[in-house]
Amino acid sequence: VTGSTPYSTIALLSDLGRADESVGVLHAIARDIAAHAAVIDVTHDIAVDDVRAGSLALARATAYLPGEVIVVAAVDCESQRLVAVQVAGGRGVLIGPDNGLLAPGVAVAGGADRAIVLSNTDYHLDSPGAVFAVRDVLMPAAAHLCNGVPLDALGMPIDPAVLLPGTVPIPRHDAESSGLICEVMSVNRRGDVQLNASPDDLAGWVASTVSVETPASERGGRVAHVVKRTGDLRPGAIGIIVDAHGMCALVANRRSAAEEMGVVVGDMVILAPGDDDVPSVVSTPVTFTR
Amino acid sequence: VTGSTPYSTIALLSDLGRADESVGVLHAIARDIAAHAAVIDVTHDIAVDDVRAGSLALARATAYLPGEVIVVAAVDCESQRLVAVQVAGGRGVLIGPDNGLLAPGVAVAGGADRAIVLSNTDYHLDSPGAVFAVRDVLMPAAAHLCNGVPLDALGMPIDPAVLLPGTVPIPRHDAESSGLICEVMSVNRRGDVQLNASPDDLAGWVASTVSVETPASERGGRVAHVVKRTGDLRPGAIGIIVDAHGMCALVANRRSAAEEMGVVVGDMVILAPGDDDVPSVVSTPVTFTR
Amino acid sequence: VTGSTPYSTIALLSDLGRADESVGVLHAIARDIAAHAAVIDVTHDIAVDDVRAGSLALARATAYLPGEVIVVAAVDCESQRLVAVQVAGGRGVLIGPDNGLLAPGVAVAGGADRAIVLSNTDYHLDSPGAVFAVRDVLMPAAAHLCNGVPLDALGMPIDPAVLLPGTVPIPRHDAESSGLICEVMSVNRRGDVQLNASPDDLAGWVASTVSVETPASERGGRVAHVVKRTGDLRPGAIGIIVDAHGMCALVANRRSAAEEMGVVVGDMVILAPGDDDVPSVVSTPVTFTR
Repeated sequence: VTGSTPYSTIALLSDLGRADESVGVLHAIARDIAAHAAVIDVTHDIAVDDVRAGSLALARATAYLPGEVIVVAAVDCESQRLVAVQVAGGRGVLIGPDNGLLAPGVAVAGGADRAIVLSNTDYHLDSPGAVFAVRDVLMPAAAHLCNGVPLDALGMPIDPAVLLPGTVPIPRHDAESSGLICEVMSVNRRGDVQLNASPDDLAGWVASTVSVETPASERGGRVAHVVKRTGDLRPGAIGIIVDAHGMCALVANRRSAAEEMGVVVGDMVILAPGDDDVPSVVSTPVTFTR
Repeated sequence: VTGSTPYSTIALLSDLGRADESVGVLHAIARDIAAHAAVIDVTHDIAVDDVRAGSLALARATAYLPGEVIVVAAVDCESQRLVAVQVAGGRGVLIGPDNGLLAPGVAVAGGADRAIVLSNTDYHLDSPGAVFAVRDVLMPAAAHLCNGVPLDALGMPIDPAVLLPGTVPIPRHDAESSGLICEVMSVNRRGDVQLNASPDDLAGWVASTVSVETPASERGGRVAHVVKRTGDLRPGAIGIIVDAHGMCALVANRRSAAEEMGVVVGDMVILAPGDDDVPSVVSTPVTFTR
Repeated sequence: VTGSTPYSTIALLSDLGRADESVGVLHAIARDIAAHAAVIDVTHDIAVDDVRAGSLALARATAYLPGEVIVVAAVDCESQRLVAVQVAGGRGVLIGPDNGLLAPGVAVAGGADRAIVLSNTDYHLDSPGAVFAVRDVLMPAAAHLCNGVPLDALGMPIDPAVLLPGTVPIPRHDAESSGLICEVMSVNRRGDVQLNASPDDLAGWVASTVSVETPASERGGRVAHVVKRTGDLRPGAIGIIVDAHGMCALVANRRSAAEEMGVVVGDMVILAPGDDDVPSVVSTPVTFTR
């Protein structure tokens, strides 16, 4: 009986940018249909059609969302089936295209309870031309849910198990080199390089450094010092930390590690336990556990 | 008796950008004067002083605004008369400079009921220096209207007929070539090229393609396939669709049509009925009606 | 007894940018902890770690903030002591790092009543990795204050007098040249050049022009016409006005004064009373008082 849940917050994520009126129109639609709902902009600067980047940003944000929330995520919606996925016993609903965008967020929220295809056009807005999915279908659906319209009313139920899974890669161990083959997931405004490796992937590595091989590096790679905080690094050093999202990240102190190492999102990065002859910058070794 | 209308939403559009605190200050002023009003950012990334781009974004957004709304639009305000224009029997008021910025939005809303010049300084904020129109005059006016101050109290009535009209050009038929001479109105983040032509302007064109001449194209121009959705185009093709705003747009599938055709906002584009020998990418011809 | 003050607005300023989900997460946290609070984004586009630019934007915004407001300012927080500073008899609280960022805003608000270090981890969020100060400490503190948690509960009191002062430089008179040695504080989207000089610093200058020497200018400098509004300048001229923030600014009409004079933030600019042989563009001389 989630239909009676008083959803009160809509969290928006898209690749629309803010240069034109599109995002403003989404806010206006929410205000028009469900004036009581608060609308939070997660981000609108996902690169056009970059489903993976959108899914990562959504997954990272999901843990911080309030209860009774509808998430509207819109990246590469055209020609996609549009769905709503209920999570957390009805405390949240994620709405978007069935292209993997929602999957990591759904996983963070504990998995899908149930899902529907947004096929009921009674809850769509008419377009004067081509359908603009987020404006004509996704956002109206979110607003109607906030008004107490039951999820079931929005369309046909589907088995959540058939939803397209996410495309976030997992790191793999390289049998030959005993290294961990990772990928650059994102680079933030500071130039920190977030990898797809969790501290668990590096469990048992006891050296105070990690060797980092990048597409741009010479064989053998660069030394990254294992530190707790970027601020613990000495000038000129590259570090590896468990970042604020709980993932391994390459960092530099008041410099861009991404720029310095010449890596961009999607690059392969190979980590290997360091050679302890390299003097550590911190007195006590840090072990890779949260 | 619009003074008693409980305006509850302020929609903001400007060329202020978000790099400094200006937009935040506008939100703070609204919160200070009329705490119950919700403020929606339509966009603040209109190019500096680009009245036409601002007026287009405003017109496109207007149809989606909620009722009981005040629109504050601020592009090229300096040395301009500042006005408030009531529309839709008092369900909305548009506030901004009398430089044509508001005109297309007013037209979309059904025309002006009445207008005033914001001359009553009792409702202005004092500036420590030069007047900053949107901060000192427009936003305070909007907030006071939300508090129930009658429109008439904000200044002197003027005849809405004397307000400066908008500058959105209309396409014209070229007698010589039987083509339609259009202009590029806007280019969105995907690189779709919105023209100032509506489907009605192309009524009766029955070919499955349209010839498109641009400043960069050879005489004869490029072939655009008439399709309903960008996704119907085959790789490499340029299409022409009725876009989500109900206007004709040149598009490409997962590429920027603007970049590929070398066109920017303001460019002249000449459309002409295509030569049907060109094989269509869709099996059923699309006719240019909404 | 400020603990019972019903804070209802949170104003946010940071260098996080909007490209990822970070700012959205801050809004989500506020909504989760204190759903009734309105969150205003002052700006998030301060350059990374640019404490001075952040402090200036904050100071300029402070005068316009509503009552019962919590300001969260986050620029260069890592390795800094995190503090909350009460101002205006409890009508406002500024929260941020103790690195000078808050100081000019505190001064505009009339000085600090009292201050605490945000040391009580009961009101922090747990991080899955490194602490993300604004997410884990500053924003939760603001939200808890909005819920009526007393300031004292958030940590240990400290003497406000020991807070790091701001780094906004003051102009100085050059004994040799009788000029005023200023610095470029900020450049807005129009290219207006805001100096660290107030009209009082130029009191007694009666010429209708000011000589402006910049790093790029020849000795003797360029002539700036003293005008009230940018619109009063004739084409091609550079002007000096008391800007909307009450400070002296170099401006050009529909051009970027910054670009034309080749100045950027931090540059030294020397002003001197002009030579009145230069014909004024305005008929009545303007004196430098607000």
